[in-house]
Amino acid sequence: MTDPGAWTIPMTSLSRLVIPSIAAAAALAAMPARADEGMWTYDNFPAATVQQQLNAQITPQWLDRVRLATLRLSNCTASFISGEGLILTNHHCAASCLAQISTAERDRLRDGFLADTRAAEVRCPTQYADVLMKMEDITAKVNAATAGLGDREANEARKKTLTQLEQACERAAGQRDPRRCESVTLYQGGQYFLYQYKRYDDVRIAFAPEAAIAAFGGDPDNFQFPRWCLDMAILRAYENGKPAVTPDHLKINWAGAVANEAVFVSGHPGSTDRLLTVAQLEAQRAELPLWLQRASELRGRYIQFGKTGAEAARIVADPLSSLENGIKVRRKQLDALLEPALLEQKRAAEADLRRRAAFPAEQDPWAAIEKAAQRETELSVPYGFIEGGAGFNSVLFRYARILVRAAAERGKPSEERLREYVDTALPALQRQLTAAVPVYPEREKLTFSFGAERMREFLGPDHALVRTLLAEFSPDSLAAGLIDGSKLADPAVRQQLWDGGQAAVDASEDPMIRIAKLVDEPARALRRQMEDEVEAVVDAAQEKIARARFAAFGTRIYPDATFTLRLNYGSVQGWNEAGTDVPPFTRLARLFERATDSEPFRLPESWSSKRALLDPETYFNLITNSDIVGGNSGSPLINAQGEIVGLMFDGNIHSISGSYWFDAAKNRAVAVHPAIMHTALTRIYDARELGRELGL
Amino acid sequence: MTDPGAWTIPMTSLSRLVIPSIAAAAALAAMPARADEGMWTYDNFPAATVQQQLNAQITPQWLDRVRLATLRLSNCTASFISGEGLILTNHHCAASCLAQISTAERDRLRDGFLADTRAAEVRCPTQYADVLMKMEDITAKVNAATAGLGDREANEARKKTLTQLEQACERAAGQRDPRRCESVTLYQGGQYFLYQYKRYDDVRIAFAPEAAIAAFGGDPDNFQFPRWCLDMAILRAYENGKPAVTPDHLKINWAGAVANEAVFVSGHPGSTDRLLTVAQLEAQRAELPLWLQRASELRGRYIQFGKTGAEAARIVADPLSSLENGIKVRRKQLDALLEPALLEQKRAAEADLRRRAAFPAEQDPWAAIEKAAQRETELSVPYGFIEGGAGFNSVLFRYARILVRAAAERGKPSEERLREYVDTALPALQRQLTAAVPVYPEREKLTFSFGAERMREFLGPDHALVRTLLAEFSPDSLAAGLIDGSKLADPAVRQQLWDGGQAAVDASEDPMIRIAKLVDEPARALRRQMEDEVEAVVDAAQEKIARARFAAFGTRIYPDATFTLRLNYGSVQGWNEAGTDVPPFTRLARLFERATDSEPFRLPESWSSKRALLDPETYFNLITNSDIVGGNSGSPLINAQGEIVGLMFDGNIHSISGSYWFDAAKNRAVAVHPAIMHTALTRIYDARELGRELGL
Repeated sequence: MTDPGAWTIPMTSLSRLVIPSIAAAAALAAMPARADEGMWTYDNFPAATVQQQLNAQITPQWLDRVRLATLRLSNCTASFISGEGLILTNHHCAASCLAQISTAERDRLRDGFLADTRAAEVRCPTQYADVLMKMEDITAKVNAATAGLGDREANEARKKTLTQLEQACERAAGQRDPRRCESVTLYQGGQYFLYQYKRYDDVRIAFAPEAAIAAFGGDPDNFQFPRWCLDMAILRAYENGKPAVTPDHLKINWAGAVANEAVFVSGHPGSTDRLLTVAQLEAQRAELPLWLQRASELRGRYIQFGKTGAEAARIVADPLSSLENGIKVRRKQLDALLEPALLEQKRAAEADLRRRAAFPAEQDPWAAIEKAAQRETELSVPYGFIEGGAGFNSVLFRYARILVRAAAERGKPSEERLREYVDTALPALQRQLTAAVPVYPEREKLTFSFGAERMREFLGPDHALVRTLLAEFSPDSLAAGLIDGSKLADPAVRQQLWDGGQAAVDASEDPMIRIAKLVDEPARALRRQMEDEVEAVVDAAQEKIARARFAAFGTRIYPDATFTLRLNYGSVQGWNEAGTDVPPFTRLARLFERATDSEPFRLPESWSSKRALLDPETYFNLITNSDIVGGNSGSPLINAQGEIVGLMFDGNIHSISGSYWFDAAKNRAVAVHPAIMHTALTRIYDARELGRELGL
Repeated sequence: MTDPGAWTIPMTSLSRLVIPSIAAAAALAAMPARADEGMWTYDNFPAATVQQQLNAQITPQWLDRVRLATLRLSNCTASFISGEGLILTNHHCAASCLAQISTAERDRLRDGFLADTRAAEVRCPTQYADVLMKMEDITAKVNAATAGLGDREANEARKKTLTQLEQACERAAGQRDPRRCESVTLYQGGQYFLYQYKRYDDVRIAFAPEAAIAAFGGDPDNFQFPRWCLDMAILRAYENGKPAVTPDHLKINWAGAVANEAVFVSGHPGSTDRLLTVAQLEAQRAELPLWLQRASELRGRYIQFGKTGAEAARIVADPLSSLENGIKVRRKQLDALLEPALLEQKRAAEADLRRRAAFPAEQDPWAAIEKAAQRETELSVPYGFIEGGAGFNSVLFRYARILVRAAAERGKPSEERLREYVDTALPALQRQLTAAVPVYPEREKLTFSFGAERMREFLGPDHALVRTLLAEFSPDSLAAGLIDGSKLADPAVRQQLWDGGQAAVDASEDPMIRIAKLVDEPARALRRQMEDEVEAVVDAAQEKIARARFAAFGTRIYPDATFTLRLNYGSVQGWNEAGTDVPPFTRLARLFERATDSEPFRLPESWSSKRALLDPETYFNLITNSDIVGGNSGSPLINAQGEIVGLMFDGNIHSISGSYWFDAAKNRAVAVHPAIMHTALTRIYDARELGRELGL
């Protein structure tokens, strides 16, 4: 088993017991950002500060070129590195693709992949790549739509307005040069933007090393430094069946960055909670242990299942890595929230802004959020199991849920649908639904049975829905009946049900469809409650806090991460760990010294056999004080000249507290050095075609 | 798989990452106990209060008789119910015995057990039963030994003195009527006692029902009420191969208790932390999630392993139940510590006592404990894995550890040994070591591999000991080599190594012995640090706080639970759950209505086939407001006349917060009603011999 998991946004099969939109919700910081801290939007990049602090000149042209060369993948970042659509990202960002195109006979996740020619490049079934083309401020339009309304009505009106604006934007772009238009909430409702993306939905894999070198050290080394991971993969974007023409791309500087050099990271940090209110942080502190318990049990089930055979190990490798990454992240997040200094700082900042804002007691937004957070805690367990789907944890249930919901929602006007089923969302949803990806019945049974068993534990055996499902069956027998009886693993069956709409869904006797229908009403009821009693209240209160914050600090502050494009600045820097200086670079020699005979420290033959031929002084990984988090995986590390001098793939252990604050002394980002990528492509894998294209 | 786990002290194979003695350490309460609250020692039972509140007269004779009829098992309570050594306890207290005497062909844990005659009663390999004969206050002697010493020296002197007093006590009792003498620390060092026990170490199983009715509802129903569990088992104490003569026994009143009746529980509450300082509670709040993660992963591994076959399911059934019980307890303990009202009350009580005591700042015991708690947090992870043995999680390692340590310790004078190897501890230790119990290699590999993998994760792959163990091996291959290579599963081999002492251990090439030797030095170093830097400081500070508390409140307060004999008073009471009254009794009819076709709600054939023959109105379980916790499992529920009117086996979900405080409105204890025991013995199992002895 390999553990390539690192800094993707943890999108594990286990949904977290809070709505992401609420978990990410946050009040704005009391204090402007310190040096090197900040995930800046491209329209508000502090170029003057950078000039002053780092003596680097970032021009509007530099910003445009880097923006157009930066790509958003489904849960990572990437960049164009050639004029013919070649894309650089992390191995762990391509891990799902590699797992999807693997079979029992050919394990491309474990063994790696190299297309000798372009014709040999293999399409990733669900991967896409988005380029941010344009940003439009729509704050005034959204505020106009919600002015004077109560919280619930404002929440509805806000969503409807965002849907309408997205639709109008996509219509305006037309079919010839289509755009994907997404609204973005920044500063927790202080600003609303419409982002226009060009989407490449034919993305193919060209190169990936073996998981054993990409994620050398596996889960034990994850979020550690010093480090030796070749966490790289090369993809290519296609348009109309041909390599995409991509004049806006970044050149790799194979010499890489030097110590103290000014560097920039362009990418998509997934989510930070730096500006949550104290009440929200305390609620998270109480919820994280529950998530960790469920995730840890699933980890144990995966690991034990994986020991039953090679094929079993293969089919759990990818979800297990994601899960272990998520566990490490949340474990350290919990540690951060248990650190007294953090909550003290948050309390002080909150008290300061409350004093400045001086809301009358009955309009105090912090009090409103505190009450809503209590309500969220009450709702979160049933919500997570029933609406979040954790009680029916399986790929097939997720297909069934989409089919059942889409059939119902498509019968309504777009603006009145659940947001994930509006017209502009349907193409991507349909593609995800009908993509030909393998479904493993044994893994499905494992996750479904686990989910049902824990739902019974947490909701109790006498809960109406639990009793309906489990009066006759054990979790195992329920899972077996549903998964063996369902035909939804066949993409053609899913396509038919999608095309057939409500009538087809109503007529379906597929047991998983029937379960999804059975669950739908209680699930929607919980969602209604969560949206009306929590989300609406929190969103309204956060808008108020955001306005107070702008009044105090303007936009000298940066918004929390929202998996949208950001740019930050920093430099190549080590740190001091308990009295010992950790230098910012690692070199090849120590990789070989650290290797052992067993996973995850066993080197692949391709490396161990070539030890004598390689320069032991070759740079391997490096660290910077860049302010990045999950979602930045695969981001290019860029020098002042706009060249790639590293490939971000992780942070050190202190970086995980970056969810809540930026610890400038210890928070470090970890990158693959270009020198080891060069060595790998030329000396280890002999990737001649790619080498030619990259000028090697 | 069955889940009979309930209220045993959670002694799972996963050791908690704090030293029990420190976890249980606590400052004394600021306030005298409220009505119905309290785990009173027999020498300080508030009979006058009981007379006044409950109109029940508890005489010294009553106290003596009940005390002499109450038994301490290895992790539970029990009572004598006949003059010929018959013992009543819970099924889940006999579960380990039932598992130990089961084989792949005869699963006595699942299928139950009934000895038709006394000759058919089967000895439990490791069970014993202790009766508390005498209590002696040795506070003055201990205080004299430590007077004027620094914390570390006092800690050493205290242990040495306790060892000497225990030894002198056992010597004085002599061989003819031997006593087991154990020192007891009450009120966190406010009092020291010497307790003298008569030990029965030949305990045999006479009757146990099927696990499916003993633990009907399994883990989902554990700590719930209403409830339908026949959680009973009948054992018998033997002396010199014959049933013990036990004139001090309790009569079962088959009609049971009625609503509001005054009732008493005599038993051995294992551990409470009601009087910890705020700093200690906060440290626990930070440590519990780590325990829960590790336990949850092990739960997942056990469950998945159990699905590989019937025998696999059987061999993990007993440890899985204990583990699931432990998870539920700690999950609710964490919830309690995250409840703001609890810490607020603790802060207020602490502030009050600090004011009364008025220690000078440099002698403030609360500050000393806070600093020690921080140090404990730093040490607890390596301590837990290396000295606690969590990194080598297996029965065979525990045998090896005992053999290696005992060999070294037995070479020293008794008072200078580690406390668990002093002369008075050796007989029980030797018996535990050499008992003929099954060792399951596949289960051993599972737990060992899990422990080694997590040790690598938490200590890091570059930790010296981790690197020594895992440079050449994976956790799985290390586990396989050690467990397949070790001969320690054979009791005769263990006996030889015990008898052979240091020379035999030094000569042994058993790989598990060699690992235990390898680990011993770093393990002892951690223990030294924990004892000197944490335990010594905390114990000294707690003695100070205890004296301040006595000065304020005398002994109108009760000591925290220490798995020593206590008596409490209360009454048969329901409670109000979120606006709904929960009545205090359940009846048989609902058991059948609630049964389903699948575990853990499937009834055994013995019950389902006799439904028509039974009175549906028969009382099944009942609840009282008795203040009990884990360790009280198997305790007799006694009326004012000294008759058994119930058999304690669990608490409701609110009872778990009883670790930290007593919530009189909601905390309820759950018992088996005598009426259903009567029905079971006479109508279901036809236990004629036992029935005759019990006067049925």
